[in-house]
Amino acid sequence: MDLFRNFKSVTKTCYGRGSFGKLGEILEPHRSANKGFMVFLVDHYFEGKADFIACIPKQAADEIIFCSTAKEPSTKQIDGLRDDILARRGLPAGMVGIGGGNVMDVAKALSLMFTNEGSSVQYQGLNLIKKPGIYHCGVPTISGTGAEVSMTAVLTGPVKKLGLKCDWTVFDQIVLDPDLIASVPRDQWFYTGMDTYIHSVEAITGTKKNTFAEAYSEKALGMCREVFLKRERSDPKSDEFLMVASYMGGLSLTYSEVGVCHALSYGLGKVLELHHCIANCIAFDKLEDVYGDYVQEFKGMVKHLQVNIPQGLAKDWSESTIDAMAEVAYNLPHMWDHAFGPDWQKVLDRERIKGWYRRM
Amino acid sequence: MDLFRNFKSVTKTCYGRGSFGKLGEILEPHRSANKGFMVFLVDHYFEGKADFIACIPKQAADEIIFCSTAKEPSTKQIDGLRDDILARRGLPAGMVGIGGGNVMDVAKALSLMFTNEGSSVQYQGLNLIKKPGIYHCGVPTISGTGAEVSMTAVLTGPVKKLGLKCDWTVFDQIVLDPDLIASVPRDQWFYTGMDTYIHSVEAITGTKKNTFAEAYSEKALGMCREVFLKRERSDPKSDEFLMVASYMGGLSLTYSEVGVCHALSYGLGKVLELHHCIANCIAFDKLEDVYGDYVQEFKGMVKHLQVNIPQGLAKDWSESTIDAMAEVAYNLPHMWDHAFGPDWQKVLDRERIKGWYRRM
Repeated sequence: MDLFRNFKSVTKTCYGRGSFGKLGEILEPHRSANKGFMVFLVDHYFEGKADFIACIPKQAADEIIFCSTAKEPSTKQIDGLRDDILARRGLPAGMVGIGGGNVMDVAKALSLMFTNEGSSVQYQGLNLIKKPGIYHCGVPTISGTGAEVSMTAVLTGPVKKLGLKCDWTVFDQIVLDPDLIASVPRDQWFYTGMDTYIHSVEAITGTKKNTFAEAYSEKALGMCREVFLKRERSDPKSDEFLMVASYMGGLSLTYSEVGVCHALSYGLGKVLELHHCIANCIAFDKLEDVYGDYVQEFKGMVKHLQVNIPQGLAKDWSESTIDAMAEVAYNLPHMWDHAFGPDWQKVLDRERIKGWYRRM
Repeated sequence: MDLFRNFKSVTKTCYGRGSFGKLGEILEPHRSANKGFMVFLVDHYFEGKADFIACIPKQAADEIIFCSTAKEPSTKQIDGLRDDILARRGLPAGMVGIGGGNVMDVAKALSLMFTNEGSSVQYQGLNLIKKPGIYHCGVPTISGTGAEVSMTAVLTGPVKKLGLKCDWTVFDQIVLDPDLIASVPRDQWFYTGMDTYIHSVEAITGTKKNTFAEAYSEKALGMCREVFLKRERSDPKSDEFLMVASYMGGLSLTYSEVGVCHALSYGLGKVLELHHCIANCIAFDKLEDVYGDYVQEFKGMVKHLQVNIPQGLAKDWSESTIDAMAEVAYNLPHMWDHAFGPDWQKVLDRERIKGWYRRM
């Protein structure tokens, strides 16, 4: 039989231009729980952008907390935010994450850590969380990571970079408003959008996929082509396609896995603290021996849009840096198993991984 | 802004060959509720098919009830089943519907009527249900209607043919096992599969669609082409595609509507008691003036697969029969509004509707 998975969906989904304007109405039935206040966790990018902040349906008792995305979300950050809010205000009615994949993951993790005692470090892994979290809602303002639909909240801890992964991680509500992604800076728009392109490619080319995953991957890839090859960014359809592509790309992983690029990207993230989406682009650019025509297509998009993908990084990396990254990547067996099958150790060793890093 | 909808998803989804074998494990955590027994509502097609029945994870206290699908689900049928089970056994822990769209709708409606007092007639419409139902799980054995993901359970009542439509109608669990649809009789396989083709066409051609709905429609249509034009039915991919096409076709209606064909089909169903899926095929076959190339493509599939679409029916219909069907169809303004826009009354009157019926 196929891979057995029984996946939990986001409970409610509101898609469409203008749907951000309905957020107040959407939150209303959830406001009376616990201490009766909502926490809006907002990407620091919006700090001082008064027009945008005015659109957040904040009521008197609610809090807006600006969330730095300079680094990937960490267990320390989550524990600190949780302890601070609980000490000052008690248990919120709900969490609303407004931002990119980083903010989505912080909102998901915080929701769980409000009701599960101790440090988030002890819950990094699959199904380690003991209790459902508080109500949590995600409002993406940049599209591509698929964090709006995933069942994981990836955290960097003292030892591991690993998600809080369980059914309760999944959002209770997402609000997908294409208007919100219209003003994303161009490079970030491309790097983040490429996350859905790359994980859709990885999902569709490995051994663990099924027809359900393929359908989502193929459609996400088709929409990426519309956005990054065929249409102008100013075409209103472009933002709409990208938002749906991110959603569908995220769902393509429900019955598949990421592969070689994400494994290498985790190494770049853990050792060099490179952001996930740009790290993916740096790695994918050098993976023609694995992803063939897809890498050609990626290069075509880069050229067409005149985006900068950093080159020649490896010449500044010491052997021990490369060793460390290869070690992180090698220790992701589920990705290699998906990419190359159960006998992956016959075609992959640390030297091959180092070879890819040296090309970057 | 777009149509504002905030849609409830099926809570958990298990897709894949062999997943029916996991049903027992999936139901286990839900068995202790209420009186601690499960009701398996099974399409009468399986009555006496011992090999299939043996695969149902029935425990000692559970009941299997075979459900006739000779007629479309009715309020009387639902009320009767509910009253009988409550009188004999009390409130079940959950309902498991195993069958086609008809059985899916009965399972959804029954789940709600176990906890909402009085006759189901009083709940026909949008958001009239007062309380959540009991746990309900859907296991399709034929694909195409999309009933596995929809938020409605269509019932024929003494006055109206209208659904119990609310967030609580949506299944808590669906199990999508392509093995289960392999032995569907050929004509039924085609008629039911065409339901997803036809409502995807209607979804994508009207005025109320958005990009989210388009993405699902387009992918569902592509998979229908694989199943009904490009592959042999014996190709294992064929059943897999059809099951995912039904799921995605159902989701295409989340942000769109059905159109002319479904309106005419409701007339055929209400007045002549024709089953929904064959009625759709009879109507769609004559709608070239509305759905153009899609009707050509449909005719190509019919020819390629040598399926019988009933012809020349209208010659046996009296004027009063045609009047009655046209009246049912005309009174579905949301479908006409979607198909022709808010000024639909300028292009549509009862005479035009009768003209379509006379072609059948």
